[in-house]
Amino acid sequence: MAGSSIGRNFTITTWGESHGKALGVVIDGCPAGIPLSVEDIMKDLDRRKPGQSRFTTPRKEEDQVDILSGVFEGKTTGTPISMIIYNTNQRSRDYSDIKDIYRPGHADFTYDAKYGFRDYRGGGRSSGRETAARVAAGALAKKILSELGIDVMAYTLAIDEVYIDRESFDRDEIYRNSLAMPDKEAAKRAGLLLEKRMAEKDSAGGIIETVVTGLAPGLGEPVFEKLDAALSKAIMSIGAVKGIEFGSGFKAGKMKGSDHNDSLYYDEDGQLRKETNNAGGLVGGISDGSDIVFRAAIKPTSSISKAQQSVSKDGTNKSIVVEGRHDPIIVPRAVVVFEAMTAIVLVDFLFMRILSNIDMIKKAYK
Amino acid sequence: MAGSSIGRNFTITTWGESHGKALGVVIDGCPAGIPLSVEDIMKDLDRRKPGQSRFTTPRKEEDQVDILSGVFEGKTTGTPISMIIYNTNQRSRDYSDIKDIYRPGHADFTYDAKYGFRDYRGGGRSSGRETAARVAAGALAKKILSELGIDVMAYTLAIDEVYIDRESFDRDEIYRNSLAMPDKEAAKRAGLLLEKRMAEKDSAGGIIETVVTGLAPGLGEPVFEKLDAALSKAIMSIGAVKGIEFGSGFKAGKMKGSDHNDSLYYDEDGQLRKETNNAGGLVGGISDGSDIVFRAAIKPTSSISKAQQSVSKDGTNKSIVVEGRHDPIIVPRAVVVFEAMTAIVLVDFLFMRILSNIDMIKKAYK
Amino acid sequence: MAGSSIGRNFTITTWGESHGKALGVVIDGCPAGIPLSVEDIMKDLDRRKPGQSRFTTPRKEEDQVDILSGVFEGKTTGTPISMIIYNTNQRSRDYSDIKDIYRPGHADFTYDAKYGFRDYRGGGRSSGRETAARVAAGALAKKILSELGIDVMAYTLAIDEVYIDRESFDRDEIYRNSLAMPDKEAAKRAGLLLEKRMAEKDSAGGIIETVVTGLAPGLGEPVFEKLDAALSKAIMSIGAVKGIEFGSGFKAGKMKGSDHNDSLYYDEDGQLRKETNNAGGLVGGISDGSDIVFRAAIKPTSSISKAQQSVSKDGTNKSIVVEGRHDPIIVPRAVVVFEAMTAIVLVDFLFMRILSNIDMIKKAYK
Amino acid sequence: MAGSSIGRNFTITTWGESHGKALGVVIDGCPAGIPLSVEDIMKDLDRRKPGQSRFTTPRKEEDQVDILSGVFEGKTTGTPISMIIYNTNQRSRDYSDIKDIYRPGHADFTYDAKYGFRDYRGGGRSSGRETAARVAAGALAKKILSELGIDVMAYTLAIDEVYIDRESFDRDEIYRNSLAMPDKEAAKRAGLLLEKRMAEKDSAGGIIETVVTGLAPGLGEPVFEKLDAALSKAIMSIGAVKGIEFGSGFKAGKMKGSDHNDSLYYDEDGQLRKETNNAGGLVGGISDGSDIVFRAAIKPTSSISKAQQSVSKDGTNKSIVVEGRHDPIIVPRAVVVFEAMTAIVLVDFLFMRILSNIDMIKKAYK
Repeated sequence: MAGSSIGRNFTITTWGESHGKALGVVIDGCPAGIPLSVEDIMKDLDRRKPGQSRFTTPRKEEDQVDILSGVFEGKTTGTPISMIIYNTNQRSRDYSDIKDIYRPGHADFTYDAKYGFRDYRGGGRSSGRETAARVAAGALAKKILSELGIDVMAYTLAIDEVYIDRESFDRDEIYRNSLAMPDKEAAKRAGLLLEKRMAEKDSAGGIIETVVTGLAPGLGEPVFEKLDAALSKAIMSIGAVKGIEFGSGFKAGKMKGSDHNDSLYYDEDGQLRKETNNAGGLVGGISDGSDIVFRAAIKPTSSISKAQQSVSKDGTNKSIVVEGRHDPIIVPRAVVVFEAMTAIVLVDFLFMRILSNIDMIKKAYK
Repeated sequence: MAGSSIGRNFTITTWGESHGKALGVVIDGCPAGIPLSVEDIMKDLDRRKPGQSRFTTPRKEEDQVDILSGVFEGKTTGTPISMIIYNTNQRSRDYSDIKDIYRPGHADFTYDAKYGFRDYRGGGRSSGRETAARVAAGALAKKILSELGIDVMAYTLAIDEVYIDRESFDRDEIYRNSLAMPDKEAAKRAGLLLEKRMAEKDSAGGIIETVVTGLAPGLGEPVFEKLDAALSKAIMSIGAVKGIEFGSGFKAGKMKGSDHNDSLYYDEDGQLRKETNNAGGLVGGISDGSDIVFRAAIKPTSSISKAQQSVSKDGTNKSIVVEGRHDPIIVPRAVVVFEAMTAIVLVDFLFMRILSNIDMIKKAYK
Repeated sequence: MAGSSIGRNFTITTWGESHGKALGVVIDGCPAGIPLSVEDIMKDLDRRKPGQSRFTTPRKEEDQVDILSGVFEGKTTGTPISMIIYNTNQRSRDYSDIKDIYRPGHADFTYDAKYGFRDYRGGGRSSGRETAARVAAGALAKKILSELGIDVMAYTLAIDEVYIDRESFDRDEIYRNSLAMPDKEAAKRAGLLLEKRMAEKDSAGGIIETVVTGLAPGLGEPVFEKLDAALSKAIMSIGAVKGIEFGSGFKAGKMKGSDHNDSLYYDEDGQLRKETNNAGGLVGGISDGSDIVFRAAIKPTSSISKAQQSVSKDGTNKSIVVEGRHDPIIVPRAVVVFEAMTAIVLVDFLFMRILSNIDMIKKAYK
Repeated sequence: MAGSSIGRNFTITTWGESHGKALGVVIDGCPAGIPLSVEDIMKDLDRRKPGQSRFTTPRKEEDQVDILSGVFEGKTTGTPISMIIYNTNQRSRDYSDIKDIYRPGHADFTYDAKYGFRDYRGGGRSSGRETAARVAAGALAKKILSELGIDVMAYTLAIDEVYIDRESFDRDEIYRNSLAMPDKEAAKRAGLLLEKRMAEKDSAGGIIETVVTGLAPGLGEPVFEKLDAALSKAIMSIGAVKGIEFGSGFKAGKMKGSDHNDSLYYDEDGQLRKETNNAGGLVGGISDGSDIVFRAAIKPTSSISKAQQSVSKDGTNKSIVVEGRHDPIIVPRAVVVFEAMTAIVLVDFLFMRILSNIDMIKKAYK
């Protein structure tokens, strides 16, 4: 069933398998008049690409994007934008070892159960490689948002037990250290932990935090298209994400109402403010003008070199070792995917927001 | 913008405000031939209705549903099923006290910001009362699932710090005690805690757990319509939910890959099994045949009788007390709403699952 | 499968059967701030209601609408608008005569084949009565359009061979004569023809023309959401419509390119004009600022008192006579349904139009 | 706004401009297990490609398709199928002559009005070249239908006044003569007429008829997703189509009910039959098991070498001649596009049909 599209008016459709000829994305519903170049896209794709540190697989994925349609004389035309990334480095290795095996933590069994067979080369469609297409679309979404003063930032909040120190928050560090942590010291400690995991032929998980600033109040549609609900779906659709929480999140379950409610007040300039942001920037599913803040948990990489108990398709139990070198952690490369999915949803909700009010419609239509 | 519908092929549209004439739901895409009566719906509506214990508001909401279309001679006809619940008990009290005030934790400000004005009577569309319509639709969804051997069960896992003891799990208790806890002793302790909160004019939060059993592998559509992603959206669209996690959830961020991966094996009957269920019943967004398990955090009730700092629309800061008696906790009455949203999503994904495989299509079409 | 909704951002969902308790419509995505009263709706519903002339069934359908949600203090709130029309006049007559019979020209057989059984009372969901719900939604859609200076007008162009004389076009006549013809003389001649058909226990068909004025250029989305394509679907979804054509229509098949192309020129005021309107107001599926013009053919009423060859469900051939008195022609009462469907589509496309251009979005969002 | 997708469960998204780098289509929702090769697609693409007769432009469009994803070991995998056609033959000619001109009958003005500017090279997105992507998707859709015994056939019914003689209907002729007419003699006469038009530097229009056989009853969803309504939208979305009619079509407007109603009877084998097929294979928007039959009018090619009155963007009236050699008629090359759009819609409705009945669902799910 059709499940590779997201968005109602700003619609993203990704396609492609990890070891097929290419992968790509079609963005339909992008307004005309946005300046767009290959460089705009590469900036984000480069943040996702592997082979950049000792914590990412040394596999070389060029991830060179080409824009095939929808842009003319440097600007979007309003028609579908098709972007393609050719899989240049898929050496035709022998996959017969995993062809008939269901790797623990992988979608091997579920794809077989659903479709009757599967493209077993490198995970096929279930591979994290698919997110390259999301990042390409997200780079465009972020450009649209920036035209309206909206900023989306994601970063590694924690790797295993190593959390950033919020007092030392340094945005530049996100793009500088190989773990996308906005805290140099925490990144160092997390690095040590990861080296330990690698030595154990094991992997680690973590938490990504996303913050949206500059958003006007009013985004989000009652009752099923609440902005937090839609963001949850988008984020949970990223492989390896096991949970998401907004503002106070799971802590809310243990708070008193009087502590949880964000007190409102007008500041000296008559601006409406909140004492706290337990809401995470949304009330009743609608943005309230403060920062949108959410966190998501990422499971440890499923592919590990340690021997594991598993099964083959034909009914026998067997011990397996997943060959090749894999990222010991998914988190740092997923950070830009979080930004992408967040931005894609926000553009769609920004569009819907305009349509919820006849005054806005009149202003636009004139 | 249109946001009151959910589901692609099995589509639910709710309408109505807390203090309007009525509220209701249209279910479009229900297959023909399902036996359906008003009693089927009332069974679940009664679980949600207030006034049943000392922990729910004594407001009397009759919540009597009427089925207006789509059922003929006791069976669904395949055409839209319209259900209505009249608001019989909305005494025309004076709302002038909250008309111009933005209550902390409520959607008063965001609705005003979005639409320019709002129906301020009892929260209008943002009221939890809207979930009665979801429960009505969910009762039907659960009937469809039961025709295929699928069961959906939600319950209170924790209220504040009081968790159930999994060793004492007793399903019948869910429907017996006023806190929907499957553990009598835990319910008692939670009751004491709630009485304390009520005495303090305050409120409490908690955690709901949902378990789906009997589901075949193969539900969930790569890559954006992953089943866990869609469930997250549906659950997060319930007011007051602040986070959701599947299987290992947020703990996954602190686990090693070798611990997190669910080992696979064939049991004595040649049945594929997992040693653990950290996956929560889904891999790659597709059900794997084991139980679907997720938990969600519910914030404490926003309406409290304690004085709070807030603002009025006209620009002045003021202290407010939310009048009336309100539930000191949302969790127990939300349990059946969780079941409803879960079932609604599952029916839709069950339909999509059939369409993903030409053999299934041929079997059905013949 | 869910098929009772239309529209992406301005979404209409109708429900109800001809002889059920009620029928209705939920309008989701109506912007906040539109003044709306029951009278606004009744004005159009009254144009559709039967029993008003010798050419409509004397059945009394009160068609009194009630607005149950989405309007507060006389204005739309931005949340779903639910409207209901109770079926007050469905005398419980005995339907055993048609229960097992497939009436020629009716959907009796196809509903049975699809769903396994059907609500046989008065056609159930396939009855023309369902269009009352469309008209209610259309009245609101026309209000939104009128806020932006857009007018939708439909009328009877022809009944059987009797066409209006375009030289005598008189808009007021549409609302004055019982055949909705904008030409008094033609209406008289058509009336005589209809009386002849009634005497023969037979029925007649005709053509409805729809004209939209005041529409800005730019509505319609390449390539599948062309405005003419979407209008065609909406109009063809009205029962009894057998064909639709825009501008030159079927004549285009016999024209030369040099005759068919609408020559462009600037008038004295520098306004872009066309010599002709063979395009029907759209090029490439996008409105060009001139009038949108289309025509649709309506088949003769299927229910006739004349004996017809047909079958019963159980496998026997039999002659049948459709009991009761029925409209000898569908056309005049369908005119307002055409306006409704046209307006519903236009509102949706107006919304989409705004989103196709970053300048419009910026203007609205500020 | 996103308008380049069609279909709910079987979803086609096309992208690309006439003179961009490439054009293509993503097919999402194709069930797993359908055998598919490049040759399957080329067979239909070759029927559409130009340069094959004296009535098509001698422009060489290679139209070589590549399948980039969704197929593994010769079968569809259930994940998105991306197909691409590179534009190899777009000589970089100088377009400055049409850059600022609005050609009559073309979408030049409407694109400019909508988007603020346009890709003027060869019509950009509004070019008929986009239909190559539809044909590629349609070839797959026809494969799926053929697995279920359903056949889709389109052909030229008329060119200008030259109609085929139904008595001489010969299906093989459709694929043999350059006008796709199933009547050799008519094709000859139409050829002479076209040569005359070409000599006059003018163009001609015509009518395409489409017939679907082997379809079970029950496809089509009340009330807005009627099968004829959905087909109308799909067909009207093909550029140059000015009208569509089913079965009796526009003639229905002049018929008596007793003539129009298709009498039903059981034949000697107890099979339900109709004396006539004025319905065109659908009643109440649902297929009745007989042939689906519809016709559509195609306007004469807009690009003609004859001088025409038009305007330039800057406000001046001017006479223009559209350079290059163009097809004097669109009809023959559009025939396979009609088949494609019809098949795409049918697959989607076949899927929906299965979901309308709990018995079918149970059969599939077991």
